[in-house]
Amino acid sequence: MANIKKQLKFDDVRMRGFKKRSTVNVVLEWLEQQGGKLSSQVISLHQANGRMLALDVVSQVNIPGFPRSMMDGYALIAADTQGASAYNQLPLQVVGKSLPGQGANVKVRTGTAVKIMTGAPIPDGANAVLPVEKVEVDGDSIFVMENVAEGRNIARIGEDISKGQTILHRNRILRPQDIGLLASIGLDKVSVIRQPQVRIVATGNELLSAGNNPDDYRIVNSNGPMLEALAIRDGGHVVSSKIVADDEQSIREALLEDCDILMISGGTSVGEEDLVPLLLAEEGELVFHGVAMRPSRSAGVGVIGSKLIFLIPGNPVACLCAYDFFSGRYLRKLAGKNTEWPYISVLRKLDKKLVSMVGRTDYVRVRLLSDNKVEPLAISGAGILSSTTEADGFAVVPDDSEGYEQDTEIEVFLYDQNGVA
Amino acid sequence: MANIKKQLKFDDVRMRGFKKRSTVNVVLEWLEQQGGKLSSQVISLHQANGRMLALDVVSQVNIPGFPRSMMDGYALIAADTQGASAYNQLPLQVVGKSLPGQGANVKVRTGTAVKIMTGAPIPDGANAVLPVEKVEVDGDSIFVMENVAEGRNIARIGEDISKGQTILHRNRILRPQDIGLLASIGLDKVSVIRQPQVRIVATGNELLSAGNNPDDYRIVNSNGPMLEALAIRDGGHVVSSKIVADDEQSIREALLEDCDILMISGGTSVGEEDLVPLLLAEEGELVFHGVAMRPSRSAGVGVIGSKLIFLIPGNPVACLCAYDFFSGRYLRKLAGKNTEWPYISVLRKLDKKLVSMVGRTDYVRVRLLSDNKVEPLAISGAGILSSTTEADGFAVVPDDSEGYEQDTEIEVFLYDQNGVA
Repeated sequence: MANIKKQLKFDDVRMRGFKKRSTVNVVLEWLEQQGGKLSSQVISLHQANGRMLALDVVSQVNIPGFPRSMMDGYALIAADTQGASAYNQLPLQVVGKSLPGQGANVKVRTGTAVKIMTGAPIPDGANAVLPVEKVEVDGDSIFVMENVAEGRNIARIGEDISKGQTILHRNRILRPQDIGLLASIGLDKVSVIRQPQVRIVATGNELLSAGNNPDDYRIVNSNGPMLEALAIRDGGHVVSSKIVADDEQSIREALLEDCDILMISGGTSVGEEDLVPLLLAEEGELVFHGVAMRPSRSAGVGVIGSKLIFLIPGNPVACLCAYDFFSGRYLRKLAGKNTEWPYISVLRKLDKKLVSMVGRTDYVRVRLLSDNKVEPLAISGAGILSSTTEADGFAVVPDDSEGYEQDTEIEVFLYDQNGVA
Repeated sequence: MANIKKQLKFDDVRMRGFKKRSTVNVVLEWLEQQGGKLSSQVISLHQANGRMLALDVVSQVNIPGFPRSMMDGYALIAADTQGASAYNQLPLQVVGKSLPGQGANVKVRTGTAVKIMTGAPIPDGANAVLPVEKVEVDGDSIFVMENVAEGRNIARIGEDISKGQTILHRNRILRPQDIGLLASIGLDKVSVIRQPQVRIVATGNELLSAGNNPDDYRIVNSNGPMLEALAIRDGGHVVSSKIVADDEQSIREALLEDCDILMISGGTSVGEEDLVPLLLAEEGELVFHGVAMRPSRSAGVGVIGSKLIFLIPGNPVACLCAYDFFSGRYLRKLAGKNTEWPYISVLRKLDKKLVSMVGRTDYVRVRLLSDNKVEPLAISGAGILSSTTEADGFAVVPDDSEGYEQDTEIEVFLYDQNGVA
């Protein structure tokens, strides 16, 4: 503690900037190696859609559990329909009715049939169902107009699912129809990989919480609410989102709180007030600090125990960029989702030159134009949050590129979650 | 009531099937004309991501609200840096410090500078910020090594957002960065279009609720949980999901409950127990009943007041199909989402012939094969829910097609919400 306090004194060397920045790819490669499988939890089927199954699910029952009719029609003995046609209608006596959920209290014998509804149990003695369209009805008699083969229109016991069958395998992301399937075999709970527990911290004495008007020299924390929305979108459970003062004790406490992913915004650079990287290095490991990208060059990643800590610049645009590049990807990985961007991408021609620098990755907000072209938005002001709300999406200029000439076709990632641009 | 009871008697004419089926397109065209804008509600920013803004949002404040530094460096008078270079370093006296959230209680005069952090207020008298990299520091003095223009590295009042500016327009689907922007101007609530209120009813005396084991002739309601997951995925609020017995009074009550969208599964065909279409026709309007599609030919749509009622076949696969074609689309429309399928589509070659029929739309579950081809799954048994969990997705054969030859490239819609196949 003593030595770090000394370091935190007015330190002009540190203010000179990062000694060396890591490339985006080096950080991504490292991130890919991190993060084991999270533990599991049992949840209600109502909450399970989109979650990752933790265990194989084996059915304890047959579906159907009884032979059942697949049609509205007549349960009968197939042999009784031999030779039947529109010109040779064979009569049968209707001796009962089988409805879904109820058996027919009658046995089908030669010369008789039981009226049956879709889903109803096949009565004893019957071995086929003739669809209702294939008979003429006259009181309690029917006239069969078509031959039907044995077993026809009957769902056999276990035909859909057999007892002992593994119906869904672990690591599957559950779909709505899986929820239905799980219910059908008698479950209303399921074991899934728990959601990544996310904490969000915005540092800065100047920050007010949402709902306050910005006043004098204070501004409202916008990174917290934005990161919360992003984390929830990507499958995280946000345990807390709070503002922490720029002091050693408060930041240290925030760094040590239990979770899977901590996103801490502000105080990440190398300025006098930027305590976060120093304290993280003391409490755990500061793996990367300073990335060759624009915006977000002060982004960083560290580890304390099994928790990953993402240093996220305080500038709102840089914050969004750092989330999109690093913490979002890791969060989706832990949540068992596709780690790629959850944005739909389209190809568009640049309406003007887009200049970048070799050795640096650029995250460029762009606007779609009516002539099917795309316009990079003025790059100045990483702090201009409104530029990300005015933008339709973003493009990336990788670090081996100097940018693109006018009319180059580039890939644009659309912010709109509907993909409607 | 009296006359419908008569109709509900054993009625063999009705059991013969649908007189006429509508095409999928006719139903879709009609659906497109339905559904006005829902009313609005005020919700917390925490819940607002992905929701549709009901009103234009006008900022009551300037952002920034004060001139603030965009860099770590020194606030000074630009004229004092005229002619400065590495070879002509100009000295200034550092007279104070400006930190975020705090003003510097000192005025900058010629020959002086104030140390300043990113985001901190520009002290009186200063008109530019020189980045920290452009000075040499010696105790309380700095030596300026570069000329800086007036206004440089200062964010002006209202540069991001100006008071009175409309920052977001009504009908926008809110994005995470919008949530941040709304917070930054002092809001913690926002007026959005309310979610479509959805009720889900599964009819059938044979149905047990989730958590029960299927027994004897009874089966567990799987359509309810599946439809619930689908409706939530697509932005609906599920008010209730319940099982209703196959009797007139219970179904009538269910039809009359208040909501925007009622999905009622089972009892939709033309069999003896299929009361739903008849009761809907009595209480409101049965607009369509019977669609030229497979599965789901007994699907239908009706109206009671401003509520749309979707008749959904009881067979689980047909249920999923009817949701995908009709109720899901309408729900997404009311929720302000893209009405198109929320499934990623890929092109794949058929590994075998896919046969359909002119005049009928087919919803074909398919499996992706390792050789980049796609296999249609056996079409038999619309009741086989496991076929939709085994399928990777589905393809559609429109009603003007007889199907496709082997090796035809077809569009496959992937069930996996991650688009990972």
